[in-house]
Amino acid sequence: MTNPKINFTPGPSQLYFTVADHMRTAFREGIPSLSHRSKQFENIYKDTVDGLRELLGLPDHFHVFFTGSATEIWERTIQNLVLQNSVHLVNGSFSKRFYEVALQLNKKALLLEAPAGSGFEFDVQIPGDTELIALTHNETSTGVALPLNFISAIREQNPSALMVIDAVSSLPHPDFDYADADAVFFSVQKGFGLPAGLGVWLVNDRCIEKAETLLSKGNSIGSYHNIPSLLQHERKFQTPETPNVLAIYLLSKVVADMIRRGIGKIRKETEYKAAILYQALEKHAAIGPFVSDAPWRSQTVIVADTGNLTGTITETLLRHGMQPGDGYGGHKKTQLRFANFPTHAKEHFELLVDLLDKL
Amino acid sequence: MTNPKINFTPGPSQLYFTVADHMRTAFREGIPSLSHRSKQFENIYKDTVDGLRELLGLPDHFHVFFTGSATEIWERTIQNLVLQNSVHLVNGSFSKRFYEVALQLNKKALLLEAPAGSGFEFDVQIPGDTELIALTHNETSTGVALPLNFISAIREQNPSALMVIDAVSSLPHPDFDYADADAVFFSVQKGFGLPAGLGVWLVNDRCIEKAETLLSKGNSIGSYHNIPSLLQHERKFQTPETPNVLAIYLLSKVVADMIRRGIGKIRKETEYKAAILYQALEKHAAIGPFVSDAPWRSQTVIVADTGNLTGTITETLLRHGMQPGDGYGGHKKTQLRFANFPTHAKEHFELLVDLLDKL
Repeated sequence: MTNPKINFTPGPSQLYFTVADHMRTAFREGIPSLSHRSKQFENIYKDTVDGLRELLGLPDHFHVFFTGSATEIWERTIQNLVLQNSVHLVNGSFSKRFYEVALQLNKKALLLEAPAGSGFEFDVQIPGDTELIALTHNETSTGVALPLNFISAIREQNPSALMVIDAVSSLPHPDFDYADADAVFFSVQKGFGLPAGLGVWLVNDRCIEKAETLLSKGNSIGSYHNIPSLLQHERKFQTPETPNVLAIYLLSKVVADMIRRGIGKIRKETEYKAAILYQALEKHAAIGPFVSDAPWRSQTVIVADTGNLTGTITETLLRHGMQPGDGYGGHKKTQLRFANFPTHAKEHFELLVDLLDKL
Repeated sequence: MTNPKINFTPGPSQLYFTVADHMRTAFREGIPSLSHRSKQFENIYKDTVDGLRELLGLPDHFHVFFTGSATEIWERTIQNLVLQNSVHLVNGSFSKRFYEVALQLNKKALLLEAPAGSGFEFDVQIPGDTELIALTHNETSTGVALPLNFISAIREQNPSALMVIDAVSSLPHPDFDYADADAVFFSVQKGFGLPAGLGVWLVNDRCIEKAETLLSKGNSIGSYHNIPSLLQHERKFQTPETPNVLAIYLLSKVVADMIRRGIGKIRKETEYKAAILYQALEKHAAIGPFVSDAPWRSQTVIVADTGNLTGTITETLLRHGMQPGDGYGGHKKTQLRFANFPTHAKEHFELLVDLLDKL
């Protein structure tokens, strides 16, 4: 089995560099068989919540719930927050799957789609009876990200709808104004650099009210992972089911590490690494960035149009211990994707850029 | 933080004794950041399926699906396999929650309840229009288990209903006749001794057909984790979402370890350990088994009525490095529970019995 030193696949991604140490400590301290009804677990849950509030600037009226995956959160979002009408801004394969989940749950879902590799450069018209607007901040498939002022504008024009932001492959980088969102979610195997198997759902009181209203009118909003059940348990820092205790523990530790490092520093380094890679792609004769319009370019998943050099570049990088991510879906043979997460060092990006320059 | 040598809590339980080694290997081999779309992951999934077939004697027409927890499987079972009518044989708190999930999903669920600590010693009458019968083979809360011939009799009397068996805290011990079941499920943090965060759902073709029929008639059966979606991915040894890859890897390794040890030997040892503990409880002057009727006694979760000795016994055991499980719910102060899983050595049970004898 190969295990390259630097893994640029956008998820599951390279582990955050402290994870192996935390896993050893976890085993020493009995975390893998810790009861989720113990005081010690409640402390771990609380540490994670406190840490996320500090790291992300998350306001107190947001609750922190755990699920099995971000994919589960797509389903729980529709199930708990939509009686009939949702609107989905689709800019790639993952935002499209969020839309399809709404159809599978028999909702009237409206699709507003941007061309592949582009932002929403048109007048986004959202019907007045929309209950929920689903945005994907960072499309892992295409490397298109929504500018924060675009999100604010959508919010301002549609104050009554719930705004839900999929930030699976961007957090902890974006400095969201949480007044623009009612729910935000991510999974831990991307920017947080943890083993997969945990989704994190940040939910405000408007979402709680909506779920409780749907329930009180006799609609089924699911069982153990409906919002009222998650909330009732979160108040005691517990979970409805036996959760992935180990992943929650590791998340609490990595969040603490990131706080010590400083979120400002992490954001600046992320933007520096993105800038040098986009610059290298732009000035390159044979390859280029897939997203042509700079304001819509992701800082955390950088997609390169590599055409018929894709194989050559991959081989070159692998020889230097670097694993690029394949292009997504139909772009597998003509694009490469580079995750730019907090675990990726500046030096690795400088080496990557050097290698691309020389091609 | 305390970390007693021997943990008898019934879940999350003591780790299987090989897990720490497998975790070290996993990190060496890059498993925590392995892509779930890689060939290597498909091999791990296939190894797990092949291993479970061999260990449990699972027939080929059963599929093996992964979820976030067994709690999730309660919900997926009702969502995918019941249009309206389910029947629940309830012998404790967990089987009751399975019933409540059906109510939360707006089904007409019928409850057939045995008194606490007793089996179904009455004529179990199941209506002819029942679509699904939910059995909990081993009630973790009360230590009541269903005899295998009781399960066969229910099956024989109700051939048209789907039979679903919750075996969360009994597998791999029970030698089920899989002709008696259409679906069986467990979570990995009990008998398999793994960190929590993975449910395993064994599903036959009758379940596939039922889910497909419900879907074709316009019923919502959920999204990514509906049975057709799980099946479509399982055929490629993939999962719809990014799963808990690390837990699936660890399960494949522990299943292989158990196959090498021999399922016959594991079953015999389990029964020996249960027998000496029940014997000690029966002959004790001050404490006794909660389940009085021997055929309904669990082999894997042994519940003792410890009354006002509960505190004394707990302290004595803790002094000897042994952590008993608290009684469940209202029995917290008057009962103790002892998990009897493959990781618990005969010597530990012999020591436990010695200590109880001396009290």
